[in-house]
Amino acid sequence: MKTEVVVVRTGPSRSATDLTGEASEFVRGDGNGLLNVFVPHATAGVAVIETGAGSDHDLMEILEDLIPHEDRYRHRHGSFGHGADHVLPGLVAPSTTIPVIEGRLALGTWQSIVLIDTNVDNQERRVRFTFLPG
Amino acid sequence: MKTEVVVVRTGPSRSATDLTGEASEFVRGDGNGLLNVFVPHATAGVAVIETGAGSDHDLMEILEDLIPHEDRYRHRHGSFGHGADHVLPGLVAPSTTIPVIEGRLALGTWQSIVLIDTNVDNQERRVRFTFLPG
Amino acid sequence: MKTEVVVVRTGPSRSATDLTGEASEFVRGDGNGLLNVFVPHATAGVAVIETGAGSDHDLMEILEDLIPHEDRYRHRHGSFGHGADHVLPGLVAPSTTIPVIEGRLALGTWQSIVLIDTNVDNQERRVRFTFLPG
Repeated sequence: MKTEVVVVRTGPSRSATDLTGEASEFVRGDGNGLLNVFVPHATAGVAVIETGAGSDHDLMEILEDLIPHEDRYRHRHGSFGHGADHVLPGLVAPSTTIPVIEGRLALGTWQSIVLIDTNVDNQERRVRFTFLPG
Repeated sequence: MKTEVVVVRTGPSRSATDLTGEASEFVRGDGNGLLNVFVPHATAGVAVIETGAGSDHDLMEILEDLIPHEDRYRHRHGSFGHGADHVLPGLVAPSTTIPVIEGRLALGTWQSIVLIDTNVDNQERRVRFTFLPG
Repeated sequence: MKTEVVVVRTGPSRSATDLTGEASEFVRGDGNGLLNVFVPHATAGVAVIETGAGSDHDLMEILEDLIPHEDRYRHRHGSFGHGADHVLPGLVAPSTTIPVIEGRLALGTWQSIVLIDTNVDNQERRVRFTFLPG
């Protein structure tokens, strides 16, 4: 097994940050196995979606519809509506697992691995890549 | 590790296609390990739900409520509201991992592995099964 | 590989049950690898969220908004609106995978592994922990 934590700058806005480059780099030269992408934060998730054609933005909008930043949450620390950020990983899980074939992610043509972060209070995130050879 | 891509015909409607038979067949005769089911498409997901008693239909209806096919998406290729299909894998991830015990999926009695596909423009889908022995 | 089923009492109400203690105990003394947490039920899911500060309650509330217990489901067995419980695992998957480093879960400070169970008809649940060393 090989594991590594990378630090990702997500900035002060709600963001979808493409991790595909870092993930590809991480498994390059390895053989077959599974890559686990895990975000050790309680206010972020990992999605596998298309980027670059608006869908990352669309996902963020839908998430705001489903989990609005409003004054309704029991969790009340942080900025207004921050309780929503803590609900997020219930719907967009902080863990995903992707097959690796001869050192390459077996992603489809239009798939990217994306860190979903609706939390504006936290501008830097860690992501753990773990490769289990098989 | 053992990995294989199967082709699934999902047809021209929004669909929930049961993959349990193919997945069971794939791990039959293997020992203990983990089965990863991965859909290499940006407009589909994998769910583990009951089938045959209406719940697959109910899930599709709820998904249409949550991610409606409307004129609201920044992603604008394909048929009307197709942007919704690209949001889908943000909520129904294209990857799931299931324990395998002595060549059998450790699913519960009422669980099936289901390919969720709301994209009517794509009638055929690939699914990658990967078995990591342990 | 090491695998074990634990029985969790979820009681007669909708509940979010913290499994982090059991999961930590399960991998203690193991080396590096991946822990898979799998719920073999068609009306429950596994989430990785913060507990103890209201977010588990907030998630349950949002889930009731998104998948209301109403008279709208094709699945009609069980108590009123029980069809909602069968949609749940479509959004909160029954499987998650977490890295293990030297016998410890690589969770973030505020993350807990939580069994989400909106089904009031089933007061006891099984959870399968599977550790794949790497």
